[in-house]
Order: sequence, then C-alpha cells, then structure tokens
Amino acid sequence: MFSKILIANRGEIAVRIIRACREMGIETVAVYSEADRDALHTQLADEAVCIGPAAAKDSYLNIQNIISATVLTGAEAIHPGFGFLSENSKFAKMCEECNITFIGPNADCIDDMGNKSNARDIMIKAKVPIVPGSKGAIKDEKQLLKVAKEIGYPVMVKASAGGGGRGIRVVYEEKDLIKDYENAKAEAEASFGDGTIYVEKFIEKPRHVEIQILGDNHGNVVYLGERDCSMQRRNQKVLEEAPCPIMTKELRAKMGETAVRAAKTVKYNSAGTIEFLLDKNMDFYFMEMNTRIQVEHPITEMVTGVDLIKEQIKIAAGEPLSFSQEDIEIKGHAIECRINAEDASRNFMPSPGKIEGLYLPGGFNVRIDSAVYSGYKIPPYYDSMIAKLIVYGKDREEAIWKMRRALGEFIIEGVKTNIDFQFELINDENFIKGTYDTRFIENKVKSS
Amino acid sequence: MFSKILIANRGEIAVRIIRACREMGIETVAVYSEADRDALHTQLADEAVCIGPAAAKDSYLNIQNIISATVLTGAEAIHPGFGFLSENSKFAKMCEECNITFIGPNADCIDDMGNKSNARDIMIKAKVPIVPGSKGAIKDEKQLLKVAKEIGYPVMVKASAGGGGRGIRVVYEEKDLIKDYENAKAEAEASFGDGTIYVEKFIEKPRHVEIQILGDNHGNVVYLGERDCSMQRRNQKVLEEAPCPIMTKELRAKMGETAVRAAKTVKYNSAGTIEFLLDKNMDFYFMEMNTRIQVEHPITEMVTGVDLIKEQIKIAAGEPLSFSQEDIEIKGHAIECRINAEDASRNFMPSPGKIEGLYLPGGFNVRIDSAVYSGYKIPPYYDSMIAKLIVYGKDREEAIWKMRRALGEFIIEGVKTNIDFQFELINDENFIKGTYDTRFIENKVKSS
Repeated sequence: MFSKILIANRGEIAVRIIRACREMGIETVAVYSEADRDALHTQLADEAVCIGPAAAKDSYLNIQNIISATVLTGAEAIHPGFGFLSENSKFAKMCEECNITFIGPNADCIDDMGNKSNARDIMIKAKVPIVPGSKGAIKDEKQLLKVAKEIGYPVMVKASAGGGGRGIRVVYEEKDLIKDYENAKAEAEASFGDGTIYVEKFIEKPRHVEIQILGDNHGNVVYLGERDCSMQRRNQKVLEEAPCPIMTKELRAKMGETAVRAAKTVKYNSAGTIEFLLDKNMDFYFMEMNTRIQVEHPITEMVTGVDLIKEQIKIAAGEPLSFSQEDIEIKGHAIECRINAEDASRNFMPSPGKIEGLYLPGGFNVRIDSAVYSGYKIPPYYDSMIAKLIVYGKDREEAIWKMRRALGEFIIEGVKTNIDFQFELINDENFIKGTYDTRFIENKVKSS
Repeated sequence: MFSKILIANRGEIAVRIIRACREMGIETVAVYSEADRDALHTQLADEAVCIGPAAAKDSYLNIQNIISATVLTGAEAIHPGFGFLSENSKFAKMCEECNITFIGPNADCIDDMGNKSNARDIMIKAKVPIVPGSKGAIKDEKQLLKVAKEIGYPVMVKASAGGGGRGIRVVYEEKDLIKDYENAKAEAEASFGDGTIYVEKFIEKPRHVEIQILGDNHGNVVYLGERDCSMQRRNQKVLEEAPCPIMTKELRAKMGETAVRAAKTVKYNSAGTIEFLLDKNMDFYFMEMNTRIQVEHPITEMVTGVDLIKEQIKIAAGEPLSFSQEDIEIKGHAIECRINAEDASRNFMPSPGKIEGLYLPGGFNVRIDSAVYSGYKIPPYYDSMIAKLIVYGKDREEAIWKMRRALGEFIIEGVKTNIDFQFELINDENFIKGTYDTRFIENKVKSS
C-alpha cells in the first residue's frame, strides 16, 4: 500500500480523499493555489504545497507543478478527484512516466471514453444500447426519410457543429421532417458556418440513470447499483438519489451487466460511471462514461456500504477487489443535495464571500461532505459547490423526511446558497412521487 | 400517531428527539430553563416554553411546570430523554393521570427496576444470573465463612451503608476473611454509624456489557445486540462500542435471550437496557436495568440500522414492533466518544463557557449528535457532555481508524474538552487489542 498520496484537487472532494487516506494510515499531501491558502483541504492534509496562482490553469491544471510537488514530497501516487486533471490522459501518462501511480483508470480508458465518437463505437461493439441514429451526416432528403423511419419518431435533427440549442429540431411526424431539416440546416449554416446534420432518436422525458462500477487490475468488474441524477439544471446535477425511484430488480441487473460489459471491453481498472438515458418504456441508452469518481458517489456508498475512494486507492495499489457481485446489496435509500454558494433568485449566480455563520445538520444517517468552516472565505475562482448534504433512510420516504429535516436545520450566513431551492425541490409533489425527468427543474424554474 | 410531542429534556438528547419527531412529521415542543434560552434544542423545536430558573430542580425536574407546558401547547405525549425525569415513576404516573402519553415504559417497570433489591428479586425469578452473594446482612462469622465458601473466592465484603470505597474489602483467600470482615465492619461503623455487612462474589476485571432491548404493548420483545461500556471513569461512561470486542455469537444469543426474559417478566414496553458484568470466564451477571433511552444508544443504531427514538415513539403510540428477532442483524462496528466540556488535566473539572470556534468532523459514517454551535455559551448548571462523536466501520479496525481521523479533525475553541483524552484512549494499545475492563481508565489516569 502507498505510504503517501498527493491530492491534485481542492474543495470537498480533496477533503473526502484526505479523510479516506487518513483512515487507511496513508499520509497526504494537499496542493493549493494562492487563493486556497486557508482552504480546508490545505489545513487538513499532513503536508501542503502551493502550486500557483488562483486561476485553475496556473495551479490545479498545472501538470508540471503538480508532478514536481509529488516528487518533492515523495508521494507515490496522485488522486485527481473529479474535474481538473481527473480525465486528462496526458496527465495520467505523465504520472506513469514519472513512476507515480495515477489513482484512476489507465490512460487508454480515459482516451477511449473521452472521445464521444470513439466511445460510441466501443459501446456498439460491446452490445451496449446507444441512442439510435444516422451513422454520420445526412447526405440527402431520401436518406433522411429512410433513416428517420428506421429509427422511429420522434427524432431529433441535429447540427454536428451545434450547441446552445441552435441547429436542433425535434420532429414528431414524418410530414414535418423535410421542413424541420431544412430549417435546422439553415440555422446551423448561419450560426456555425457548417450545415452538417445528423439524426437520432428523440428520447422523450428521459431520466438520467447512471451505473457505478468498480474494476480492478485483475479483470474483476462489479456494479454497485444506480443513481438517478435527473434533477439537473443546465446539465448540472443538483440533487441525486439512489436507488432510482422507478428501478426494478430486473432492470438494475440488466443495466448493471451492460455497464460491466462496457467496462470490461476497455479493461477498466478503477471506479467509473456509465451514464444512461432511461426512457418511459424503461429502455436505456448509453450517454457517456465518466472515468473518475463522481460528485454524487456518496449516495452509492450509503446504500452499498462500500467506500469508493478507499476502493480506488486499493485498486491503484494493485489489490484485487475484496468482494464479488453477489456481495453487493442495495439497502435503503440515499439522497444527496449539492449545496452551492449561489443566488437562486438571481439566476443561480455564484455568490462567493465570507461564511459568517455556519450550522451543519447532524444526527443519525446524516452525512456532510464539505469544504467550509465558519469564517472561511469562498474564493470566486472555482466551482460554487461548497458542501454536499447526504441522507440515508430505510426507504425513500424516510430519506425524504430526513432531507427535509436536515435542510431545515442547515444555516450558512454571509453568502447566498441554494438551500431554500433544494428545500423546494425535496417538497415538490412530483419529486415526492418520483415521477420526474431531466426537464423537471427547468420546467419548475420556468413556471415559478 | 401523535401530532405533537413535548421533550422534557435539554442538550443533545433533546435535539436528537426533536430530529426524530420532525422526520416523522410530528411537531415538537421544547422546554427550557432560563439558562437555556439560546440552547440549540430551544431553537430547533417548533415551539419552546420556559419552565423555570437555571437550577434543574426548578426547571427540568419541575413536574408541575412541565405538565402545564404540555397541556398549554396541546402536546399529546412527553419524551423524557435520559436523566432528569426519565426514570421518575411519579412523573410517568402523573402523565397518565393527565391523559398525556409518557414515552417510556409503564410506571410499574420504572418502580420495579428502580429499586435495586426489588430488581434483584425479579431477576432471580426470571432466572437471570446475578452476582452471587449473601441474602441480606451477615449475622456472624460462621455464616460468613459458609457463604464465602459457597460463593467461591475472591469475595467482596461490603458495608450496606457503604460508599466512596469505604467499608469494602476484597478477600482472595479464606485465611484473610475474618480479619478483613472485622476491618470493614469497624470502618463502616466509624464512617456510617452502621456496621451491617454483606458479602458478594468479587468479579475480577469485569467488562460492562449491556443489552439493548425493545418491547411493545403487544408482548413483543427483541434484543438489539450489546454495547461494551467498560471505558468508564468514576462510573461515568466515556467511550462505548458495539459490538463488544470479545463477544461471540453464542454468548450474544444467551445474553440477549436473558435480557428479553427479564424484560418480559416486567412486561417492559419501550426501549430499555439491561446492564451486565461480564467476567473473564465469559459468565455474566445482572447489574441493573435502565428503563429509558441511554446516552450510548447511537452505536446500536449504527450496527442495527434501527432508529431507537422513532421506535420508542411508535411503541408509545401503540404500534407493534415492525420487526422480529430474526430481522435484527448486527453489521459492522460502531464507536462513540462522549465529548465533554471538561479539563482532563485538572481532574476532568467541568469547563463551561463560550464556544469561540467550532469545527465538526464529517464524511462517510461519521455521526455527530450535539447540542452546540459556534458562539454558544455552555451553562455551568448541567452535565458537561456537549456532543457525541459516533463512527461506523465495516469492522472494528476501520471504526478505530475512523474515530482517530474524526477526533483529529474535531476543533472546539473557547472551552476545554476531553477530545485529546479520547484520542489517547482510542490509540491505547490495550484498547486497540480490545483487552480492557472497567478499571482501564482509572489505571491509565493513575499511571500517567
């Protein structure tokens, strides 16, 4: 096992990793930017090295300085957390070249999954369902009609160069296809100077359901159930729960085995997540694979009892998984609310500043993963997420009650937060019913 | 189910009960003394009623004011917590007379178990092993010799009126018996004006192992495993763990079934604890029954998943237990450290005052049950326990590592605490080995 690990990250995930290391008897090295001298991770680690100015590109993305800090402190491994360098295969390779263990999958996995088109091809090979669509660009109207018919309506006509919702049309009936195609094409040409269009199935009211997997260096891969992350705002997850409220045992096994197949195809050797869209017919489609630990990993820990960070470290040290698929039991229900320093009333604008007062909820089955303390100044340079409030209940109803109670106790003074917004979400009757999809928050914010 | 409950207590247990109520959709009424206007329980409850001056006898022990507050606020039930009125059968009876549900066992149970000699007789009837001893006072030397021989050496010669270690002798061999008896008798006469002496078996290096039980109003009683509370200082528990590190499945079943038998004998109908001494031969002896929730109840919650406060409330509302003995599984390991505002370097003298800074540890499987916040003034009138730090691990080793990590993070500024002392305990090699008994702390403090 490693005797010292450097954590190439900041915020609550850096704290999370420091805690796991400490509980394993491993020394820790924090790296920090000039803006993070007083950050919790800087204070909690056994050693801390300043790696550059506030801007992430000069510090938390500064590969050279991070590698230097590792060599300097004699750390044998780097945990990249999430974001920053966690999915940078160049960084992973450089670690390898410097004889430093990168705590994550091998660089090829990162490459394979980082490129969307590559990932799609690999999934097709692994017989993982993907959203049906045209293979590449649409050449003419005849092909368009044929492909759309094969896929089945509704379909989405999409500009290859698209973004921000431009160059996209959802087509519900064949009679509208040509007209919508031409509009999208014209819009794409006007917006991006590129009228290339492809077609894929439009998944109506999908849920975002992802499977957590763990693979080791000995060919073992297990799945640890799913997380429902449909509660998103602008593709940013806001609240997550495990299990998915509409999951069945059969579907979990099917999605889980599919995820394991995908992971085995790329010889995946760390914690990873396969994200799927789940449609109203309970069909699921591969979206992408995150080759790193995720923000919402704690809810899986709560329902399985498995410490995913410790597992990542053990895997990176070459240990085989100490459990097999049959040992994984999903028990109870967990919910996570991301607590962000942002002003929900002003379009969720970040609200950095000094935390003047802080009261964290506690008690049975309440977990706080946070990077803040009373008197801490949240710097304006990084992500606005400052804490995660995670609760566990014997069932979903108890977990909701517990989250309600815990959010009600939570006090952060000095900066605006989304605590009240989370309280609204958790009390929304459609959330309580479990009948929500990825548009839930968008629709809710619009209608309020 | 009740719609409103009054909590006749303060500190972390009042907060604990408020949280359970809130998670059950039950409104809460806090009562507070004049010294507790700013206390957390006063702030967290839906309503709060001042019941008198700081001194407990005028407030938290003021039965009339508490009953009045209950009637005034329309609460249907009172949860007494622990300490104060929790084992006061007169109070339980008065609740009944006022049509208020006392959340605890029936008044007869409290009476039966509150009187030590009564309790002993009941246990003998229920075939619960008790520490063997003379039935009442020793009449003469002949009887003394006979009884001691029957019991088996070592025996303890004890003054009936004794206390503070006076009038007590431990006798290892028959040849010393008469001399020690006479000395003890003389000392008792001199100290208490009463030379009455009785004899009981001296349990060498005993562990304090207690069984948590739950009984309902329908005759169901289950046990929820044990807690080892041998880490005591002057009969005050300091650190508790579940399970007991030397427990076996067979012994747990035997002690559990014995506890259930004891509880059934008195028709016990709430959460309760049977405390046993466990000797080096793994024989156990009844000490006493606590007819209330205990400080250390969270470690049982962590290893069983059962919320004991919620169960108490459901039982008091007439619900039958929703599980049976077979459903109770002891999983993993939990440790609780009581965090006291006291000065370990000055003989653990209480250290009330203002909390100037506070950082609570968090993360996976770390639980804080506390009544403090940054800026809170700990009043000098009550118990010095201000928080409980509870951790859970998949096994004892992980739990110890986690406690070490969590204690290391814990910061309380402005008052002295026993955090460093707890850190020493958790790192003591005999604690780590699990080979400790009720004298552990006393010996440790002496030798340091």
